[in-house]
Amino acid sequence: MGSETSIPKGTRDFGPVEMTRRNYIFDTIRDVFRLFGYLPIETPAMENLSTLLGKYGEEGDKLLFRILNSGDFLSRIDQSVLPGLPSASLSPMISEKGLRYDLTVPFARYVVQHRSEISFPFRRFQIQPVWRADRPQKGRYREFYQCDADVIGSDSIYNEYELLKVVDEVFTRLGIKSCIKINNRKVLAGIVEVIGEGNRIIDITVAIDKIDKIGIDAVNSELESKGISSEAVKRLQPILFLSGSSKEKLDALESILSTSPTGLLGIEEMKKLYSYIDNDLMSSEIELDLTLARGLNYYTGAIIEVKASDLAIGSICGGGRYDDLTGIFGMPGVSGVGVSFGADRIYDVMSALNLFPEHDTGESRLMLVNFGGEEEKYSITILNLLRKKGICAEMYPDQAKMKKQLAYANSRGIEFVCIAGEDERTNGQVTLRNMLTGKQETFTPEQLPGRLA
Amino acid sequence: MGSETSIPKGTRDFGPVEMTRRNYIFDTIRDVFRLFGYLPIETPAMENLSTLLGKYGEEGDKLLFRILNSGDFLSRIDQSVLPGLPSASLSPMISEKGLRYDLTVPFARYVVQHRSEISFPFRRFQIQPVWRADRPQKGRYREFYQCDADVIGSDSIYNEYELLKVVDEVFTRLGIKSCIKINNRKVLAGIVEVIGEGNRIIDITVAIDKIDKIGIDAVNSELESKGISSEAVKRLQPILFLSGSSKEKLDALESILSTSPTGLLGIEEMKKLYSYIDNDLMSSEIELDLTLARGLNYYTGAIIEVKASDLAIGSICGGGRYDDLTGIFGMPGVSGVGVSFGADRIYDVMSALNLFPEHDTGESRLMLVNFGGEEEKYSITILNLLRKKGICAEMYPDQAKMKKQLAYANSRGIEFVCIAGEDERTNGQVTLRNMLTGKQETFTPEQLPGRLA
Repeated sequence: MGSETSIPKGTRDFGPVEMTRRNYIFDTIRDVFRLFGYLPIETPAMENLSTLLGKYGEEGDKLLFRILNSGDFLSRIDQSVLPGLPSASLSPMISEKGLRYDLTVPFARYVVQHRSEISFPFRRFQIQPVWRADRPQKGRYREFYQCDADVIGSDSIYNEYELLKVVDEVFTRLGIKSCIKINNRKVLAGIVEVIGEGNRIIDITVAIDKIDKIGIDAVNSELESKGISSEAVKRLQPILFLSGSSKEKLDALESILSTSPTGLLGIEEMKKLYSYIDNDLMSSEIELDLTLARGLNYYTGAIIEVKASDLAIGSICGGGRYDDLTGIFGMPGVSGVGVSFGADRIYDVMSALNLFPEHDTGESRLMLVNFGGEEEKYSITILNLLRKKGICAEMYPDQAKMKKQLAYANSRGIEFVCIAGEDERTNGQVTLRNMLTGKQETFTPEQLPGRLA
Repeated sequence: MGSETSIPKGTRDFGPVEMTRRNYIFDTIRDVFRLFGYLPIETPAMENLSTLLGKYGEEGDKLLFRILNSGDFLSRIDQSVLPGLPSASLSPMISEKGLRYDLTVPFARYVVQHRSEISFPFRRFQIQPVWRADRPQKGRYREFYQCDADVIGSDSIYNEYELLKVVDEVFTRLGIKSCIKINNRKVLAGIVEVIGEGNRIIDITVAIDKIDKIGIDAVNSELESKGISSEAVKRLQPILFLSGSSKEKLDALESILSTSPTGLLGIEEMKKLYSYIDNDLMSSEIELDLTLARGLNYYTGAIIEVKASDLAIGSICGGGRYDDLTGIFGMPGVSGVGVSFGADRIYDVMSALNLFPEHDTGESRLMLVNFGGEEEKYSITILNLLRKKGICAEMYPDQAKMKKQLAYANSRGIEFVCIAGEDERTNGQVTLRNMLTGKQETFTPEQLPGRLA
C-alpha cells in the first residue's frame, strides 16, 4: 500500500516546523504589503482555460495542469473522432478548466472583470499557490507560493520607487542582505536599435541575460550564432561594460542612445527613478545592471531582480512594468508595475544563513502533566488561567505514566512542564520544571504566567 | 470576449473587503488553535487518486476534481479500446491525481506517511481550501476553505472536552452566540440495538438527523418506508424526546440501554465528557441532542455540531471521534477526534448579524496628496515617517488634479488626507484633512502619528 501514502511528485507536505518558518516569511511580506497600502485579493485555484491559454507562450501552455470535466465527459463529444486523435486535440474536448500558473494573469482577469468596482490606481497584493507541470528538480516544485504586489492604472515612476521600498523593507525585516538590480526594457530596446539590430531584441536580451552564468565570450558566440552581425556585437561590448556611478552610466548611455527616442525615454524613466532613490536611504544595495533582461516579454519599462548578497542562489524577487497586461482581456491602455517574491527561494536563503528567529516556534511553551481525577481538574484550571493570559500551553490528554508524558514533552521540544499532583493541589501550588536544565521550582498558579514571560 | 473574464461556476474572487473579513475569521481560528497547542501542517492541493478514491463513498468519488495527466496522455494507452469506452473507464487511464476533497483524508495520509517523525498524541491544525464538483447553489461552492483541528493517537475524552473549549473560544472571540450540540455514535448504536434494529443504524440515523428539518411525523414515515418495524419506531419515540437536564437524560438512557454494552460505553463517554463540562464555564450553550447523527459514517464516538443561536442557518462547525481513520492507509488502531469550522457559513452569520469589527479594514488610514517636485519629496519623508511608526499610509502616485486625488481617497474610504504643498513644505508643516468631517488642521510631521493614533 506504499503508493497510497505518497504524494504527487513535485509537491510537498509541510510539517509544523516548516509551517512556522514559512508563515514567518508570508506574514512579514504581508505586513509590509499592508503597511504600504496594498489591498489583498484572492482568485480561484481553477481558471477557465480560455483565461490561461496563450498567455505564457507555447511552453507555458504545456505546463498547465488541466482539470478533467466532471461527470460523463465523453458523452458530449463525437466518439467516432477518437481513434488516432492526438492528446492535444482530445484535451480541449474533455477539459475546460486549469490550475492557475501564476498570479499575474488571474490578476489581469480580475481587474477587467471587476473594473466597475475598483478605484484606480489599484494597489493589490496576492499570496497564493500556483501550479506548473514542470519537471521537478532541486528547488523547483509543481506547487509553490507566489507573493505579488502590483499597482495598476498609473504610469508614474513613483510606483517603481515604492516597490523598491517594499522590497527593501521586506528583506530588511527578514534579515537578508540584498542587492536590487534594476534596468529598463526601453533602454534595452534603444541599445539594440543603435547597434543596428532593432528587431532582434528578444534574441539579444535572452543572450545577454546569461552573462553571469556563461560569461561574455559565450554570450558573444551565441549572439553571432543567432545571426547578429559582428559589427553589432562589437558595438554592444562597451555598452554592456559601462563603468562609474549609476549617474555616470546613465549620462554616458544618454549620448549613446541619442538617436533612439525609445532609448531616451528609458533613460528619462531611469533618471526619474534614481531621483527618488538618491533622496532615500535603503538597506539594500541598488545596482543599475544593463545585462539584466528577464525572460518575461510583457515587461515594457523598469525591470528589477533581487539577489541575496550572502548566498549564491538565483533571484529571490523580481518584477517590472508592463504597459498592456489587461489588453489581452479587452481593456487596453492600462499600465501596471509589480514585484513577486519567491517564498521557496527566500526559505532556502534563510535556512542556509540561519536567519529564522529561534524563539517563536509556535509550539506550546508548557505542558501540564495529567494525573487524572481531582488533579486533572486542578490542572485544567491552571491551563485555563495560562491560556487566558495568551500563553500557548497544553495538558497531556491521557493519565499515562509520568515517564511517557515527559518523553512526549521532550520530543516536542516543549520548554516547561508543569506538575500539579496531589501535594501541589492540596497546597494550592504548582511545580514548574525547566526541561532543558531540569531545575524545578514551586509557585502558586497565579505566579506562573510571570515566570514564563 | 466575455468568457475570458469569467471564472468557473461555483468559484469566487475575493476583493479587499471580503479578504479583510475572511482573514479576520481565519486569524481568529488560527490564534485559538495555536493557543491550545495545535500545530500547523499543510498538504498539497493535489493528491494521488489512490489516496482519495473510496474514502467518501460512491457519491464523493464522483465529486472529485481530477487532473488530466500531463503531456501526451493518450500515448500510454491502447487506443483501440477507446470507441464506446465509458467516461468512468477512460478517466483512470488519463488521470492519476485529484484535488483534495477535505482535510481529513490528507491528514490521515500525512500521519501514516510521516509516522516516524511525529510525536503522538499529535495535535494538528490545517486551514486550506478544498474542492468538490458539487452542483453550485446558494452558500455552496466548488472551492471553499476548511479549518480543522484534530488530535490523533489518544482516546482520552479530555480531547473532546478541549475541542469544545476551542469551539467556545473561537465563537466567543468572533462574537457569535453559539449552541454546541453533542451526541455519541455508541449511544445511537445502543438505541437501535435495544429497539431491535441493530443492523439498521445508518438508515435510522439518516432519518432522525432530519427531525429539525422535516419534523417527527415525516421522520417516522421515512423510517417505516425503509422497513423499520412499527414496533421499533414506537419504541424509538420516547427515547428521542427524553426531557430534563443532560444528567437526567443520561441517567434515563443508561437504564434504557442496560442490555447494550456499546450503548453503555457511549453513556460512560458522555458522562465523562459532562464531568469536564460541568466543571467549567463556557459562553456557548451545550446541548445533549440525541437526534444529532451527522452523515459521516467514520465517526465512532462523540459527535458535535454547532449552530448560531441568533440566526437560522445550517451548522457552522462540526466534528467527532473516529477510531480508525488511518487504518485505510495501513496504520490501524489509532483513535482521533477533531472539529472543522466552515469559514463560509461563519462569514454569512457574521455578515447577517453585523459582527465584523468596523475599524480594521486593513486599508490605508491616510493618503498624501501628490504635488510633484520638491513637495513630492517632502511628502515622501512624511510617508516614511508614518510607516516607520507602523501606520498604514500611501501617497497618490501621480501629480494629478487635487480633485481627482481626493475623489480617489473618498472612493477608497480613506479616513485622512494629508496635504503638504509649497506653503506647508516651506514652513515644515502638514495639513491634515478629515475626509468625513472636512475639518482641516495643521501640524508638524512629527505630531502627525499622535493625531492618527
